[in-house]
Amino acid sequence: MPFELTILGSSSALPTSDRYPTAQVLNVLGRFFLIDCGEGTQIQIRRQKIGFGRISHIFISHLHGDHFYGLIGLLSTFNLLGLKNDIHIYSPSELKTLLQPQLDHLKAGLQFNIIFHPLNFKKPQQIYADKKVEVLSFPLKHSCPVCGFLFKEVQKQPNIKKEYIKQYQIPIAEIKNIKAGADFKTASGEIIPNSRLTIAPPKPRSYAFCTDTVFLPEISSIIKNVDVLYHEATFTEKLKEWAQRTMHSTAREAAEMARLANAGKLLIGHFSARYKTVSEFEEEARAVFKKTEAAADGKTYKIER
Amino acid sequence: MPFELTILGSSSALPTSDRYPTAQVLNVLGRFFLIDCGEGTQIQIRRQKIGFGRISHIFISHLHGDHFYGLIGLLSTFNLLGLKNDIHIYSPSELKTLLQPQLDHLKAGLQFNIIFHPLNFKKPQQIYADKKVEVLSFPLKHSCPVCGFLFKEVQKQPNIKKEYIKQYQIPIAEIKNIKAGADFKTASGEIIPNSRLTIAPPKPRSYAFCTDTVFLPEISSIIKNVDVLYHEATFTEKLKEWAQRTMHSTAREAAEMARLANAGKLLIGHFSARYKTVSEFEEEARAVFKKTEAAADGKTYKIER
Repeated sequence: MPFELTILGSSSALPTSDRYPTAQVLNVLGRFFLIDCGEGTQIQIRRQKIGFGRISHIFISHLHGDHFYGLIGLLSTFNLLGLKNDIHIYSPSELKTLLQPQLDHLKAGLQFNIIFHPLNFKKPQQIYADKKVEVLSFPLKHSCPVCGFLFKEVQKQPNIKKEYIKQYQIPIAEIKNIKAGADFKTASGEIIPNSRLTIAPPKPRSYAFCTDTVFLPEISSIIKNVDVLYHEATFTEKLKEWAQRTMHSTAREAAEMARLANAGKLLIGHFSARYKTVSEFEEEARAVFKKTEAAADGKTYKIER
Repeated sequence: MPFELTILGSSSALPTSDRYPTAQVLNVLGRFFLIDCGEGTQIQIRRQKIGFGRISHIFISHLHGDHFYGLIGLLSTFNLLGLKNDIHIYSPSELKTLLQPQLDHLKAGLQFNIIFHPLNFKKPQQIYADKKVEVLSFPLKHSCPVCGFLFKEVQKQPNIKKEYIKQYQIPIAEIKNIKAGADFKTASGEIIPNSRLTIAPPKPRSYAFCTDTVFLPEISSIIKNVDVLYHEATFTEKLKEWAQRTMHSTAREAAEMARLANAGKLLIGHFSARYKTVSEFEEEARAVFKKTEAAADGKTYKIER
């Protein structure tokens, strides 16, 4: 089952010729979550041949323009295409106020419902959950309220070894209990321990998105053991002072966070347009955390255990 | 002196992988006029290496999103770059209302003045003029109020043939009168006719922008003898019914307008995303008006007599 991330934009406030502002599509088991929506996101979605109709959950980390200016165009395109699905937007509550005049102005009116879910900037909070996937928001620290997001598969129950079902004649009614951790008592009174009957389920895969933030060691416990961590790296240590002044992170700090969180892999992005290439970001980060890669627009990354 | 048009976007409501929504930069004698500003315009401006600081007059034909959704991002970028020039926006008056919440929200506040100039949808009107360039708006007809724009050089005065200044000993005080059309009386009383003394100035060059409109023969008198006419051609005759229903023009109608206006050249654009290539638009238009070209994103066209 797919769990993969497509980078639509990896630039910071100023887009460049080859990097759009922040936007990503995360496909978790067939659910297409849009994370941030900088200007041009709809163009990038089209280029990636991702069906617009698959997107109904949009996560906006904060209200700086490079993270949401593409939203009105995307919603307008949904409307023009005649899409009717409810659209859920998880964002700072003020977004609704900012977009309202333009939403009201849409030709022929809006043909679908938009449900705004205000983010909690005080503490971590589950903001989405279905049977297989859950999403957590958690506060980051920047010059305006901002949240990171943790997307993870729901922990599956263990599987029962098929040969034992037959051998011990386990009734169907007992399967649920064993999956939930119970031992099994056979007809002859023998106790078969749960550990013998079951196969541990695969570890749930997870992806964390941390953009526009100072280095914040305390979030490492929230994203502990995440398979892929995206962390902003607007600057390198060379411009540390700029990073501090603008409340952004350096590549070294992003790597430090990946190390603290024991991430499987680190993707860095949100690069300042001041830098001509991203190799110096990668070098700086890899000195601290080897499995680092600079995000590239249009590239898809598998989220693997 | 330059007079040239760079196409930043030539798609209609839905951008495609290789066509952005409507936006153009017109360089008239070093003045950079931005005409419409669909989503992604700032990215295209950057790709064309046009300095953001050169743009201070922005013309928005109408308030469908594909013609103005890039504006907030562009203004935000002006702000981030620390630009301080006044920005003049010629648009439907409602634009201000639509953008205001987002303008108010800009980080650190807006560092420059925006002066909104409401368009007149009742009759043609001069909306910009300096010593060398003037701009006229004129109503078009679409599903919402819309204007076209005519950009033209101001008619220069004739030049006086240098050899006659010496030969007839024309005093400097007389030069102005002769340029304005007066004959010259020599010291001996001989009348030298103005036509003998002067060289007619070059015909002023002009460019007309007509987007999102039904075929409107009555505007041909306003744009008569224009050097380059850009006219929307959202559909071909094959989808004439769609064109009529959505109040757009076909390629044939755009060509008919160029013929009526005796244009020097026709550029067509605003192509519906339904079409895979633009050759059928060109073929259809060229049957009526030979000097037709399909606008292409990133291409620059000289406005020549």
